[in-house]
Amino acid sequence: MEPGPPGDSGPAEPGPCVSGLGDTDPAASASWLSRAGAETRRGWPTVAAVLPAGGSGERMGVPTPKQFCPILERPLISYTLQALERVPWIKDIVVSVTGENMGTMNDIIQRYQHKHISLVEAGVTRHRSIFNGLKALADQSNAKLSKPEVVIIHDAVRPFVEEDVLLKVVTAAKEHGAAGAIRPLVSTVISPSANGCLDCSLDRDRYRASEMPQAFLFDVIYGAYQQCSEYDLEYGTECLQLALKYGHTKARLVEGSADLWKVTYKRDLYAAESIIKERTSKQIYIVMDRKDREEHIGVLLEEMLKNEVNNVKFTSGALCHVGRDLQPILSKQCYNFVCVNVMTSDFQETQELLNILKESNLSMLYPVVVISVHDWSTICLALYVNSLVNHKIPDTSMMPTRLPWTDNPMNVSWSSASPEPFPTRERERQAGSMN
Amino acid sequence: MEPGPPGDSGPAEPGPCVSGLGDTDPAASASWLSRAGAETRRGWPTVAAVLPAGGSGERMGVPTPKQFCPILERPLISYTLQALERVPWIKDIVVSVTGENMGTMNDIIQRYQHKHISLVEAGVTRHRSIFNGLKALADQSNAKLSKPEVVIIHDAVRPFVEEDVLLKVVTAAKEHGAAGAIRPLVSTVISPSANGCLDCSLDRDRYRASEMPQAFLFDVIYGAYQQCSEYDLEYGTECLQLALKYGHTKARLVEGSADLWKVTYKRDLYAAESIIKERTSKQIYIVMDRKDREEHIGVLLEEMLKNEVNNVKFTSGALCHVGRDLQPILSKQCYNFVCVNVMTSDFQETQELLNILKESNLSMLYPVVVISVHDWSTICLALYVNSLVNHKIPDTSMMPTRLPWTDNPMNVSWSSASPEPFPTRERERQAGSMN
Repeated sequence: MEPGPPGDSGPAEPGPCVSGLGDTDPAASASWLSRAGAETRRGWPTVAAVLPAGGSGERMGVPTPKQFCPILERPLISYTLQALERVPWIKDIVVSVTGENMGTMNDIIQRYQHKHISLVEAGVTRHRSIFNGLKALADQSNAKLSKPEVVIIHDAVRPFVEEDVLLKVVTAAKEHGAAGAIRPLVSTVISPSANGCLDCSLDRDRYRASEMPQAFLFDVIYGAYQQCSEYDLEYGTECLQLALKYGHTKARLVEGSADLWKVTYKRDLYAAESIIKERTSKQIYIVMDRKDREEHIGVLLEEMLKNEVNNVKFTSGALCHVGRDLQPILSKQCYNFVCVNVMTSDFQETQELLNILKESNLSMLYPVVVISVHDWSTICLALYVNSLVNHKIPDTSMMPTRLPWTDNPMNVSWSSASPEPFPTRERERQAGSMN
Repeated sequence: MEPGPPGDSGPAEPGPCVSGLGDTDPAASASWLSRAGAETRRGWPTVAAVLPAGGSGERMGVPTPKQFCPILERPLISYTLQALERVPWIKDIVVSVTGENMGTMNDIIQRYQHKHISLVEAGVTRHRSIFNGLKALADQSNAKLSKPEVVIIHDAVRPFVEEDVLLKVVTAAKEHGAAGAIRPLVSTVISPSANGCLDCSLDRDRYRASEMPQAFLFDVIYGAYQQCSEYDLEYGTECLQLALKYGHTKARLVEGSADLWKVTYKRDLYAAESIIKERTSKQIYIVMDRKDREEHIGVLLEEMLKNEVNNVKFTSGALCHVGRDLQPILSKQCYNFVCVNVMTSDFQETQELLNILKESNLSMLYPVVVISVHDWSTICLALYVNSLVNHKIPDTSMMPTRLPWTDNPMNVSWSSASPEPFPTRERERQAGSMN
């Protein structure tokens, strides 16, 4: 899909295959959509993003640089790239990585099918890495990239960035030349004296924490980097300060959400994992058998569940397309799967689905649920799926083949339907990895 | 146990019943112990602590004030109180809570058997709550409390405070009049102008985040609160600043560990839960049958496991004392239980233990493991317990009654040994609660 400006492509999410990591607040999402809808194609700038990812993660206390630390077996940076890729009007994403991590980064791009990514070699400091990214965008001999009007600078270790705040900083940068997300300070900031005593404490209300994303007119920030001193490149960290000092541009400050926090310490990895689990547990993929009647029933099931189960996102597909469709789905996000077979005793395709899921070595939060329907009733299925998403995993042993509380004869079997207890083990491994 | 100065009581941990939430770094622990050992009884001040806990937790986005939010079903503040109670030289802990939460707080104290706690009514701001705590300590008509020489001020929402840093701030406060823990800034701090643009950014290296705990000579901080303005009480947050402004005391700044962070957002609850799970998964309580020979074997098992399994803390007790001993253990920390029965087919007491654990509604991380030993060998048990603490939960179905890889006839059965699948459900619930 060719990137386009907001208002051109409708919802930012380019289809059901791409799960919105951050679209848990429909109200907020609707509000930016309406703003985006008000934008016109005319005047919307070309936008690229630069992600410095050359850090060593020494504060994390782990040998792997934090941007490559796995969360549910997927590297942190892949979630961040996914968040940026969801935004159709970001044309290019330039990632600065050290030479020794270039192979790792290429593997991640391939495995998770990231698009629009260019890699450049990181510098030894954050500013040098960003500068290298900007140089690649400005390089006219590079046929793959072109100089954007506005460039977003973001951190590889802030995976929960929303399109809303990206839109705000880009809009503000277009107008003011520079813009950045800010947050209230959590702790009071103090100035120590040379002898390790308190010199003064700052009035917390008068200061803010500068977060990411930030956005700049490309010429403003690139010009600032071209002029700035070696000392700035070596010891500075704040791009807004460079734009002020060398570009004489006072950045517009945009209030960001709490989700913008930077994964810095090991505890932040725990928090990120829990947030991703919380969000992905609210996504269910329904796979239906290929026959017309069953597809019809699958659609009914999906519609009914949407009405009955709150805060859960359903997407669906047909079992016969699984081999073709599944990989893009899986590469985007961990899903929970419900497979529906209607009036059949042939589970060969279901078994193939389970094999694909097993081989994909996914971090599924729940066992795959296989429903074998012999007659149709809505109420009980909703109850079951509700219990599923509320973390009470249906247990085969607890499910009567014939449900006693409906007069309507209905025959629903739940099972993990795997030759080995793979999904259960998968879940145990997940539970274990949190400890 | 009567509180005493460091160096008087040996290790800070007052016995095996109180689990060291934070004692995961033996090197750091040893280093402070040697420092504490060098202290003499003479000159060590009397110490009390004040915990303001009147906040509403609005940043958390949940209706429960954050200090009462449950982590593994236990309120956050209870972990913080436990961390302070582990320090034998803190005589009194005064907690400021709002009138409406006084009952909740009393319930927590009773349920988790907290000692040395006094409650006072919180003020409408943090400074007023601290002032109320100090007033209670200074109140000569209060027979329960006495004015300490040094007072620690800590946050109810920083549960991972270590004795090491408490010792450092108290020592520095005794010498300098005031002291506080600091941390490097994670984000650059900026000053916005009135129109919402960047005015300037601070050089990150020249500033620090002021964290907790802090400590003061009581007269310095109490005097400062008595003199300070209504504006300070209403809008100020920084005790070190009050000591500077009104007590003319420049606080000594002490580098704290990353664990001192404040639970502020929902993600911090996730992180705290994961850290507590990580730590408690490394604690195993071994319960042995009452007969002499079996106790002997239990001790052997414990000794052997201590040698074989790294980074895991074992404590043990006898099955016949379970009814008497278990409650204090449970109230302190979630444990993982291994119950050993030797040469017996009578599991009545074991069943009683399981019933007690079930009724206590504990957040156990793993199913209770019951080992029935018919002969004795060490190697395989160590392997099994190693797999237990490495999150590979022994599965009854995977355990042969007679282990094939030892020539030494050994007969070990693992089971959840519950009439209902209680431990398994417990584990599932735990896994679910993380999502």
